[in-house]
Amino acid sequence: MSVLRNLVESIRNGGIEVIDLTAPLSSETPILRLPEPFGNTVPFELREISRYDDRGPAWYWNDIVTGEHTGTHFDAPVHWVTGKDGEDVSQVPVDRLIAPAVVLDLAAEAAVDPDFLLEIAHVKAWEEANGPLPEGGWLLYRTGWDARSHDQERFLNANETGPHTPGVSVECARWLAEETAIAGLGVETVGTDAGAAHGFDPAFPCHSFLLGAGKYGLTQLRNLDRLPVTGAVVVAPPLPIAGGSGSPLRVLALVER
Amino acid sequence: MSVLRNLVESIRNGGIEVIDLTAPLSSETPILRLPEPFGNTVPFELREISRYDDRGPAWYWNDIVTGEHTGTHFDAPVHWVTGKDGEDVSQVPVDRLIAPAVVLDLAAEAAVDPDFLLEIAHVKAWEEANGPLPEGGWLLYRTGWDARSHDQERFLNANETGPHTPGVSVECARWLAEETAIAGLGVETVGTDAGAAHGFDPAFPCHSFLLGAGKYGLTQLRNLDRLPVTGAVVVAPPLPIAGGSGSPLRVLALVER
Ligand SMILES: Nc1ccccc1C(=O)C(=O)O
Ligand SMILES: Nc1ccccc1C(=O)C(=O)O
Repeated sequence: MSVLRNLVESIRNGGIEVIDLTAPLSSETPILRLPEPFGNTVPFELREISRYDDRGPAWYWNDIVTGEHTGTHFDAPVHWVTGKDGEDVSQVPVDRLIAPAVVLDLAAEAAVDPDFLLEIAHVKAWEEANGPLPEGGWLLYRTGWDARSHDQERFLNANETGPHTPGVSVECARWLAEETAIAGLGVETVGTDAGAAHGFDPAFPCHSFLLGAGKYGLTQLRNLDRLPVTGAVVVAPPLPIAGGSGSPLRVLALVER
Repeated sequence: MSVLRNLVESIRNGGIEVIDLTAPLSSETPILRLPEPFGNTVPFELREISRYDDRGPAWYWNDIVTGEHTGTHFDAPVHWVTGKDGEDVSQVPVDRLIAPAVVLDLAAEAAVDPDFLLEIAHVKAWEEANGPLPEGGWLLYRTGWDARSHDQERFLNANETGPHTPGVSVECARWLAEETAIAGLGVETVGTDAGAAHGFDPAFPCHSFLLGAGKYGLTQLRNLDRLPVTGAVVVAPPLPIAGGSGSPLRVLALVER
């Protein structure tokens, strides 16, 4: 049978499961909060145009106000100054939007240390057990943080010293960007970088190194616990916003049963 | 080889091509214009938050103002009063978002008659030649209208009697909704209905019948001329807007070479 008929047939008969890795979008969707004097994004908002009423007797529809980097979203290279000559979100080649994914699960470590950082050694140990990171694919970094996403305060986990959420060390971010063949990094947290990464050198190293290397970010993923360690395929197609730095998007995973 | 490894391998080696069916999003994106007293959607707009400047020295990002039904977008059942107890855009089952698609090409007819309407007989003749419409899949209706999408005036094609763009007859819309197994209808025009459909009985029959039957709409598609008549697979994953009536989305087609 042809590859595509096989795909459609397998989705239909349950041989392939489609798993939604996306958080729903609503006014409750947690958003990043940067300190003064930096600009911040607006909360997600629907503005009703009509709802089977005078403004439209047979139809219901809304306008949307959101940020490019809100909810489950895609970071394109131009999001960061290191990638400013790179692709905007509409320029990412479409054949990169369907790619293999692997899951690195450090949820146990992040549960006891909200400032937990992924190190090169964790990734190398994972590769020892599971083989190389996927060329042109996603490294999905599980921290268990998706369980907090219903509660903006616990999700951002900020105190007087700033936000405390797990991320990636400076060395590991540089290594993932420059020494591996991944297309990008996917995380469960509000952004790809740790909550404390504003104070790293460089600040926000995942953004700085990965986007600077033409790689991508995917954030606020959920259901990573339902994926196999290797073998999933992730569909991550951002909106083609002309000149855009990123986009909210639907992320789906295909998993063979 | 496993289905998913086969898929990834084929995308990599060109055996499967990924074709973008999506129009780019910008302030030039054409939008629907309904007459008074109906509410209308806003033009797509980016609002810059920072661009490697005081407001964010290392980063560039924007807020977005758009409509749910802007550019290439997905119509969910609740968009129409006939589907008001049906799925909102976040409730569409994810395994319906990757589905087979067929192309019905009436571009020659629409080129000489901007009010051209698809009739049941056209679809039956197509089925005679190509087999049944795909169960749970998309009927993609090619009219050549995507060639006009760069020019809002030619795309909407309105005069003193209103907009004149191709669509579907009342009888055919009812038949597609009630007598076929398709998941939905995809078009190249600003909406699934003809420009003149405000004056049909019922008004906007594609919206009324298809959404009322729990089916979906996809609009402002492009590159349908690059798809085979049968055999493509379409990935059409809307944003999971809680309670939303529809969503701009990225639509990708997979085509075997
Ligand atoms: N860390 C940041 C700093 C500035 C702007 C955005 C971010 C993100 O995390 C993002 O991409 O969501
Ligand atoms: N025909 C309409 C009437 C009212 C509201 C929206 C529409 C659309 O076409 C749409 O879904 O884009």
